[in-house]
Amino acid sequence: MASPHPFDPISPDEIKLGVALLEQTFPGEALRYKRIDVLEPIKKETVPYIEAERLNKPLPAKPARLLFSYFHRKGTGGFYKAVLNADTKKPVYVKELPKHIQGPADIDELIEIEDACNAHPAVQAEIAKMQLPDGYTVCNDPWIYGTDSDDETRRLAQCYMYIIEVDHPESNHYSLPCAFSPVFDQVSKELIRIDYLPTGTNTTTSPTKPWKPVKCVQYAHDLLDEPLRKDLKPYIVNQPEGPSFSLVGQEVKWQKWRFRVGFTNRDGLVLYNLTFDGRPTFYRLSMSEMTVPYGDPRKPYHRKQAFDAGDVGFGITANQLALGCDCLGHIKYFDGYRVDPRGNPVLLKNVICMHEQDNGIQHKHTNYRNNAATVVRNRQLVLQMICTVSNYEYVLAWILDQAGNIEQEVRATGILSTMPIDNEEGAKVPWGTNVGPGVMAAYHQHLFSLRIDPSVDGYNNTLYYEESEPLPVDQELNPYGMGYVSKQTVLKQAGFADLSIEKNRTFKIRNDNKINQVSLKPVAYKIHAAPSQMLLMSSDSFARKRAAFSEHAMWVTKYQDDELYAAGEFTNQSTIDTGLAQWASRKDNVENEDLVLWHTFGLTHNPRPEDFPVMPVEKISVMLKPDNFFTKNPALDVPPSNQQFNKSTLHEEACCPGAPKL
Amino acid sequence: MASPHPFDPISPDEIKLGVALLEQTFPGEALRYKRIDVLEPIKKETVPYIEAERLNKPLPAKPARLLFSYFHRKGTGGFYKAVLNADTKKPVYVKELPKHIQGPADIDELIEIEDACNAHPAVQAEIAKMQLPDGYTVCNDPWIYGTDSDDETRRLAQCYMYIIEVDHPESNHYSLPCAFSPVFDQVSKELIRIDYLPTGTNTTTSPTKPWKPVKCVQYAHDLLDEPLRKDLKPYIVNQPEGPSFSLVGQEVKWQKWRFRVGFTNRDGLVLYNLTFDGRPTFYRLSMSEMTVPYGDPRKPYHRKQAFDAGDVGFGITANQLALGCDCLGHIKYFDGYRVDPRGNPVLLKNVICMHEQDNGIQHKHTNYRNNAATVVRNRQLVLQMICTVSNYEYVLAWILDQAGNIEQEVRATGILSTMPIDNEEGAKVPWGTNVGPGVMAAYHQHLFSLRIDPSVDGYNNTLYYEESEPLPVDQELNPYGMGYVSKQTVLKQAGFADLSIEKNRTFKIRNDNKINQVSLKPVAYKIHAAPSQMLLMSSDSFARKRAAFSEHAMWVTKYQDDELYAAGEFTNQSTIDTGLAQWASRKDNVENEDLVLWHTFGLTHNPRPEDFPVMPVEKISVMLKPDNFFTKNPALDVPPSNQQFNKSTLHEEACCPGAPKL
Repeated sequence: MASPHPFDPISPDEIKLGVALLEQTFPGEALRYKRIDVLEPIKKETVPYIEAERLNKPLPAKPARLLFSYFHRKGTGGFYKAVLNADTKKPVYVKELPKHIQGPADIDELIEIEDACNAHPAVQAEIAKMQLPDGYTVCNDPWIYGTDSDDETRRLAQCYMYIIEVDHPESNHYSLPCAFSPVFDQVSKELIRIDYLPTGTNTTTSPTKPWKPVKCVQYAHDLLDEPLRKDLKPYIVNQPEGPSFSLVGQEVKWQKWRFRVGFTNRDGLVLYNLTFDGRPTFYRLSMSEMTVPYGDPRKPYHRKQAFDAGDVGFGITANQLALGCDCLGHIKYFDGYRVDPRGNPVLLKNVICMHEQDNGIQHKHTNYRNNAATVVRNRQLVLQMICTVSNYEYVLAWILDQAGNIEQEVRATGILSTMPIDNEEGAKVPWGTNVGPGVMAAYHQHLFSLRIDPSVDGYNNTLYYEESEPLPVDQELNPYGMGYVSKQTVLKQAGFADLSIEKNRTFKIRNDNKINQVSLKPVAYKIHAAPSQMLLMSSDSFARKRAAFSEHAMWVTKYQDDELYAAGEFTNQSTIDTGLAQWASRKDNVENEDLVLWHTFGLTHNPRPEDFPVMPVEKISVMLKPDNFFTKNPALDVPPSNQQFNKSTLHEEACCPGAPKL
Repeated sequence: MASPHPFDPISPDEIKLGVALLEQTFPGEALRYKRIDVLEPIKKETVPYIEAERLNKPLPAKPARLLFSYFHRKGTGGFYKAVLNADTKKPVYVKELPKHIQGPADIDELIEIEDACNAHPAVQAEIAKMQLPDGYTVCNDPWIYGTDSDDETRRLAQCYMYIIEVDHPESNHYSLPCAFSPVFDQVSKELIRIDYLPTGTNTTTSPTKPWKPVKCVQYAHDLLDEPLRKDLKPYIVNQPEGPSFSLVGQEVKWQKWRFRVGFTNRDGLVLYNLTFDGRPTFYRLSMSEMTVPYGDPRKPYHRKQAFDAGDVGFGITANQLALGCDCLGHIKYFDGYRVDPRGNPVLLKNVICMHEQDNGIQHKHTNYRNNAATVVRNRQLVLQMICTVSNYEYVLAWILDQAGNIEQEVRATGILSTMPIDNEEGAKVPWGTNVGPGVMAAYHQHLFSLRIDPSVDGYNNTLYYEESEPLPVDQELNPYGMGYVSKQTVLKQAGFADLSIEKNRTFKIRNDNKINQVSLKPVAYKIHAAPSQMLLMSSDSFARKRAAFSEHAMWVTKYQDDELYAAGEFTNQSTIDTGLAQWASRKDNVENEDLVLWHTFGLTHNPRPEDFPVMPVEKISVMLKPDNFFTKNPALDVPPSNQQFNKSTLHEEACCPGAPKL
């Protein structure tokens, strides 16, 4: 096979190679593959290679191409991790993991559990007790089990059951939750027990009763009671000369930006080696983790805490995007691959899309004396994936612009995770919202960890924050009390910090070795953080122990290979966060070092009825902005915005003033 | 003349009527008109009228059509306010204002002062001392004078002088500030004195010296040293069936929204009587004020504090927008009018634009079992004005969407207000950034007051905030410490409150008289506020006394006619804030009342070199979102996003993998 670039995603041939190497290691044994993917290349070997590329110098040897695999030995039941060298075609190591470690869910496993649950006689007996009307059926979403004990070593699934009103691929079963929830062993496929769900305002549960029919709140267009709007006119984006981007393999060139598009089963979209006008800015950008704890305190909901990246994976849940549906304009799609349980490569088609968009005005000035105006529009390049994690959807996009800005835009949409509630008599709970007849959506949080591995004009960087504070009143310098100044605080050691709106605390990554010749300050990028409420769960809750990263907004660590995921490598049924909080506690020196910044942000999502049956996007944005990186606005050379280029159309008035237009 | 709608902007005939009425009042006298505009209609007379419109009932009498004028009597020098009844064609009152009251700047006055300053022999003598090279000229921006005394009754202008490098309508004089600044009396046009500007790192000033030539940092495309980018391809928005909006006069219908577009010389764009699917949401939405205090403590900069709405006016500084430059797509423009000093109506052409835009995904869900997906795109309607206040530009837009959301988007762009600095030897000041050779841009804040006059399903509303807080650990209900709940606090009296990210404090406007039948909670709209650092100037500074509104993020008052502007009616050279802080101190009952919410937000803008010579937009967004207003997602009936409708194009791969595309 052709030698891939160090940042290239895994190929089907590499998956086959990985399978072959493991089959050689365990000859004749049945293995169940959970994952085969590229291992992040060793950074100290990779930097010389990409620097030579950037500077057009002779290329040194590529870093070792390493793969890794998580797999079960069916015979022993053991869960293993292997690291494999694709260049030498040899295993680096193969090790069995401790019993309390659970690997991520794989898609096939979810379907197996769903089927086992639906087919189980005890479950069918419960379904029968509901005495559903003709035509109604039942399905289940196997949920990650979460944690309420340090001692659990079984791999468990909590199956939440729902009623399907109509035989339609999009009947909204989340509108009709059942009040019982079977727990299965995911390995043996055995039923462990059936949990009964509280349906009132306290912890009381009761045996399964006949279902009192209520109307399902549907979202699919052909299941709506109301007609569709007829007054929405087409809006077409036309790029008659094609896009402004070009590609060679996974490398993208667009408007002074160069970068490589990466993809892993866990991270999904990763951006590598972003340079602007030939200068490095960021080595690697990724959404490292997200945790979603639920605020309903009652059993079994107390275990509802998903780690969407670690428990499942943004990559393997990424939607196959379709032309004209998920993006508008001229679209480039990227594919990915995963392994199936038997070791076959599976194409993940169109899991990333890339397109340009217009984002209004980039800069404008009018000389009021003569009305001479300079206007430049803000063209952006969007790289997007949409991840479906059971009920929810996350639209995760990196957006680059012409002025050196990089935005991570998160849109939360999809369907709320719902619970049954007997609300015929006006029952409400203080930790949730009734969103339809008999259905409640619990309060919850989405706390993301954005991993920012900078290379601001070089690989040794320093993180600091700047605060704006009044200058003391002083009869000579500041007699009128108008003065204010900025104060800098360097984070010399790995650790964490919080945001402060009151102080306008702004985090910046600077390169002390490069001075801006205009401002006389070090070149830097600043982070427009997303100020967010941190984790609400109690200090000794498992939710907090498992997601220590969600306690503070800003974390900094010294770069180490293999430290990619904020809550640690294995989050499924974890009892403790083995990630960021541990790495940060090393207190490594991070001043003028190869550092990594991690930003925790998110939503406290107390649902509205408007969020059901499918939620209008809730948007959060984090920006990386040049700050003393350039000596002037880097988008000055973007051509002017004018009618010859933009070809807008004028809305003509009706013939007579006041006459209706329609 | 035809009887205007109560929310219609002033017409040229009404300006002429106002002038005629004032000429009758002061026969034979020379008047200088600063403003003639509509007075906000009396709300208690207006609501029955618009409610009858909404409910298709017989219309009652319109509220009185009132105009107002600010003008000077040239003979006495007195400054007057008149209120005029356009229906009866009679003055309601004409009164002389106290000597310490200064009206807003008018455009003609600025030009008169600029000319007087440039032509003054003492100023020319200072210019001569600079010994400018051939071809260089000098101009000045007359600045509002600000305040450093309770005793000033003259109407003053501080003229900041700049060097023009080249005879071009967009030569960036802000790059080359002079170190002297004449102060003029705006009425007599007399030179009061010449201030000398500190050019080092302390308060020292010196007499005007020969100018040491430095390169001007230009922004105009044809003055750039570097070539324009050649790789930006056209991006055209095509609406072959026209827009989804329709108009009758100033009334707009779009996607279940109905509203009226208002315009005043002070507010610029105002939205009136917004209803969604026939239900009222907001009576009036406007940007009420903005103050921009500068953090350079030194004389005369200590007086740099602009009130861009009150001192000048967003309406009279609104740009004449041009097709294909300021918006993209199918554009409707709205005009306005102002009066000139002699009493002639002046057309303000194309000061507001309206167009649709696509904002990506509105909602999506994929059933992971079968990959059946529902996708709806987020079409938006944008109403925008761009205000040039000397050096700066503000792009102020109201953005409506199909899910009942209303966004106020502010983009700050334009040119930084600059000061000279002798930075040949590496001088830096802690309250500013060097942005070019010999030029420094001081730190400053932009603090906006957004005025939100709600009518959430009716005119009696209640403001409260909701916080998310942990439920105490409890062995029965919350044994694992996962529970969290929301707590409501009603603002029963007029006053203020602050934001709290830590508590996820969310302000909501509810109607206690209307209960959502699904959630069983009152219908409401919530405010996604823009968390911002409040005013930094010292507690006894004039900056703070003049802009008390800038001390807290959220204010609520009981509605009163004439209470529209957060810092009071007259801000120019004001010594005290006569607006919001005074009104709020009445402590009126605002529970289940006709209340007004005011949100203070903005930017602490410590300039970057990247913000010069013209600043990439800095964006701030405030959202009004339905919250228990609807019983389900109100955009479910938006047709699906598909290729037939959207007509996207696929990026075709190069023929051979790895081959360059370009």
